Amino acid sequence: MTDAATLARRIAQGRGDEPADVVIRGAKLLDLVGVGLVETDIAICGDTIVGTYGSYQGRRVIDAPGLIAVPGFIDTHLHIESSLVTPLEFERCVLPHGVTTAICDPHEIANVLGAEAFRYFLACAEAMRMDLRVNLSSCVPATHLETAGARLEAADLVPFMNHPKVIGLAEFMNFPGVIHRDPACLAKLEAFSARHIDGHAPLLRGLDLNAYLAAGIRTDHETTTAEEAREKLAKGMAILIREGSVSKDLHQLIPLITRDASPFLAFCTDDRNPLDIGEEGHLDYMIRTAIAHGADILATYRVASHSAARNFGLFDRGFIGPGKRADIVLVDDLAACSVKQVVAGGRLVEEALFADRAAVPSVGHGSVKCRPVTPAAFEVAAREGQTPVIGVVPGRIITERLSMALPSRDGQALPDLAQDAIKVSVIERHGKSEGGVASGFVHGFGMKRGAIASSVGHDSHNLCVVGVDDVAMAAAVNRLIAIGGGFAVAEGEEVVAELALPVAGLMSEEPFETVRHDLEHLRAAAKALGVVLAEPFLQVAFLTLPVIPHLKITDKGLVDVDAFALV
Amino acid sequence: MTDAATLARRIAQGRGDEPADVVIRGAKLLDLVGVGLVETDIAICGDTIVGTYGSYQGRRVIDAPGLIAVPGFIDTHLHIESSLVTPLEFERCVLPHGVTTAICDPHEIANVLGAEAFRYFLACAEAMRMDLRVNLSSCVPATHLETAGARLEAADLVPFMNHPKVIGLAEFMNFPGVIHRDPACLAKLEAFSARHIDGHAPLLRGLDLNAYLAAGIRTDHETTTAEEAREKLAKGMAILIREGSVSKDLHQLIPLITRDASPFLAFCTDDRNPLDIGEEGHLDYMIRTAIAHGADILATYRVASHSAARNFGLFDRGFIGPGKRADIVLVDDLAACSVKQVVAGGRLVEEALFADRAAVPSVGHGSVKCRPVTPAAFEVAAREGQTPVIGVVPGRIITERLSMALPSRDGQALPDLAQDAIKVSVIERHGKSEGGVASGFVHGFGMKRGAIASSVGHDSHNLCVVGVDDVAMAAAVNRLIAIGGGFAVAEGEEVVAELALPVAGLMSEEPFETVRHDLEHLRAAAKALGVVLAEPFLQVAFLTLPVIPHLKITDKGLVDVDAFALV
Repeated sequence: MTDAATLARRIAQGRGDEPADVVIRGAKLLDLVGVGLVETDIAICGDTIVGTYGSYQGRRVIDAPGLIAVPGFIDTHLHIESSLVTPLEFERCVLPHGVTTAICDPHEIANVLGAEAFRYFLACAEAMRMDLRVNLSSCVPATHLETAGARLEAADLVPFMNHPKVIGLAEFMNFPGVIHRDPACLAKLEAFSARHIDGHAPLLRGLDLNAYLAAGIRTDHETTTAEEAREKLAKGMAILIREGSVSKDLHQLIPLITRDASPFLAFCTDDRNPLDIGEEGHLDYMIRTAIAHGADILATYRVASHSAARNFGLFDRGFIGPGKRADIVLVDDLAACSVKQVVAGGRLVEEALFADRAAVPSVGHGSVKCRPVTPAAFEVAAREGQTPVIGVVPGRIITERLSMALPSRDGQALPDLAQDAIKVSVIERHGKSEGGVASGFVHGFGMKRGAIASSVGHDSHNLCVVGVDDVAMAAAVNRLIAIGGGFAVAEGEEVVAELALPVAGLMSEEPFETVRHDLEHLRAAAKALGVVLAEPFLQVAFLTLPVIPHLKITDKGLVDVDAFALV
Repeated sequence: MTDAATLARRIAQGRGDEPADVVIRGAKLLDLVGVGLVETDIAICGDTIVGTYGSYQGRRVIDAPGLIAVPGFIDTHLHIESSLVTPLEFERCVLPHGVTTAICDPHEIANVLGAEAFRYFLACAEAMRMDLRVNLSSCVPATHLETAGARLEAADLVPFMNHPKVIGLAEFMNFPGVIHRDPACLAKLEAFSARHIDGHAPLLRGLDLNAYLAAGIRTDHETTTAEEAREKLAKGMAILIREGSVSKDLHQLIPLITRDASPFLAFCTDDRNPLDIGEEGHLDYMIRTAIAHGADILATYRVASHSAARNFGLFDRGFIGPGKRADIVLVDDLAACSVKQVVAGGRLVEEALFADRAAVPSVGHGSVKCRPVTPAAFEVAAREGQTPVIGVVPGRIITERLSMALPSRDGQALPDLAQDAIKVSVIERHGKSEGGVASGFVHGFGMKRGAIASSVGHDSHNLCVVGVDDVAMAAAVNRLIAIGGGFAVAEGEEVVAELALPVAGLMSEEPFETVRHDLEHLRAAAKALGVVLAEPFLQVAFLTLPVIPHLKITDKGLVDVDAFALV
């Protein structure tokens, strides 16, 4: 609620009865209704635009000759945890790219900490300069085939639903549970039936898609082809076009971006790491890429702002006009989307903006609760004949189900570098199943020696280690246990590279620049072991995700995803 | 909130696991995203669509070969009181025209009854087959220049704001109060600052418009030219294109209706009487007229449905797709918008649909609280020289300020038929100001004898009578007092035509067909007195509206609207 005194100031400044707090002068405004570019002052009072298409005096003036003002960009679905930094660092990283609103789903940290994840993200949201909105994680744990740190039922979500930063229910990943009317799913859908409910419906089509939509679910960000998107759009589902670090759908979906379809579209990043943000950008990258591949400029900017806002009921943004939030991006070229300045909630984005934020105590320390392991923990009993092997596909989270005849010694199956078959193990780390370790083999890393380990392992985030020798595997895992989670690369008993992620084993407490540097070092260290994959830690993190075909591994064992059962 | 059992049924029927409650078969569906017309079954479970683009079995089948299915139409701003029938009769009248959602402002009855008006309309909404939504009247009374039956402050509105049928705050007519930061206005804007606030901003432009928008007001339905609309659209204001019985803006605004602008537009009727609904139609008339004058078909249907829904945060409608409200209009021609069948909340609109609605006790009986008058009540002291005379403009609510030298007798000014100057009087009828009568003269009716009187007189709805002789004026007024309000035509002492409007002096309790017949009779009776105006009772009703230039009359006296003061 906005108090009367604030409203009075906005009205007075909008009318020019007193100088505006801030005036952006000399920029051209992109009119989203379709008129084009018009030069005008933009007057701002506090966090709100109060005047356009007029001449204003300002207490502070931002001169922007030659620049074009567009509404702040809205990321409609993401897991901030995938940036590996805290929400307060995340905004330092992406606000300069023009992302003034982010709608996050704290699904990863909720799988570790449960409802404490919501309290932490909501506390961060209140301290942040961008407007962080939270959808409440709907599917914790994601499946029964893994051990997560928490379980969230409808009754656990309801206490948070009226928080002003909460929009509704986050991606309803358990689409089989929806269409088969699982009672726990129905309870969540009922609780949020008058609110926004985000979808997650990869490849869902036909009557199954109808059933999923009939449940009240509004959006999908898992659509990977234009043809699939067209069915969903025709049925009234909003499509959130995604370009993450792993799942990259933008190029396939660019043909959708037309003025006619724009009200039904939005952009999102889902999972995007700081290396990609640094090298390519964030939503600014999506905008320039879409336009470069033929998308209409007006439609693209609408999708990034007004349409996104409307699809999530955020009436106070997505347009540069009086009464709207002062979220403004100044670019020097619309097609290039080259961001020169950003105003977020009326404040110029510069390093000083972040200096005086309220501190938010971080959470999830000590979340890696397993005891140190010995090399013997990773033994795999030899089989007669063929052994199932997970086949990694470079740059994709889908895997192949392979089988190989592996060498053995003393009844134990051994890695076979000639076949590129090395070990993969998952160690339960939430203190729920003491000593829970499952091991198997994986193909595709190209690793010749050592091991790499991660406490990021979707969606339960147990410890996952891939290695050529058990000693190095134990060294890497024990290092993660010692530092409270993170990434580690080991050769023999020595840890040669690491990144601590002490916040629930998922996020660093360091600046994003440090994390970016450490990630580059980790990549190089993995490559030195012979690893041929471009993003080895991302590939490790998705080996454990038992909702993506075909063969995965959790702390409970190898999972045949097609049969949705343990092997 | 939708309960889990209902959700489970929707999902099961959407998936085809059980027959749908209703299937519309053989129709083509207008895809609002822009693909065109596609033949498909439409499956409905209860009040909700659960399947499109598929083949379904149904417990009931509506065969619709050759018809086109479009989403139910949404009237985004109206005063049902102007239909002269109760809300339950109103829906009988307009649902067959495809209007499945109406967002009303009970401003007229609230001026008579105060908050009781909200209770009554909300009770009606719960009994109705269309979805009636209520915006809470923001400006009761409209001005200090008249005596209304009630005064509503922010604290009177707040208790209703969380009712599920309430959207937000209705048209904020007091735009001078907004831009000059009147404390009572600010209190209302504050209370609804997180909700929808409808605007009312005739001719408001430039920095004044910016100030009005900066207050958080989102829409305008008072825009009368495309050029005015373009400024408002460019500033982010949604334009509700209006075609009422008095204010008719559609033709001027048709050029706005493009696909590009469609997300920022909606339709409304504001004030539309049953004669016009019968002779022309309702939103169906607006659609066919817009298309006939060159508006794009897809854009027009979007404006009538999806865009309207989105501008008011109604996510569950405005599109024919699974999960949306089953509000479907079947037309046999898109351009003609010839409505053949209507489904509202999953039920076929036919006379039987209205038979079993819960009865809603009507309100506002005895709202005409003044005592009978004598002819002497209408005496006007003669002036030296010129007397101010209200100049009626046929078909418009604006009036001219004329002055005439009038004849007199015994110190009393007299009507002068040669100059078409007859008497007009307003009698306070809310029991607030016993004996409050103001009289003056009006030009333009062409009346040669008798009088016509009305208890509908915007916005305070005191009794207004226009007449050639004081005896007939008293007869007409006293008849209104006897029947609890309405319209009356008198010749000498005899009342020759009447329509009782016992519900607050504004609405009949009869079927709309009866009201329509009585209105025709009243029109004929007025014409027999010599009246040359096409809609004499509408013109009377707006003689009293002191917010529309130039010269008006209230129970307090003649009002110079330009000076916003009594003459």
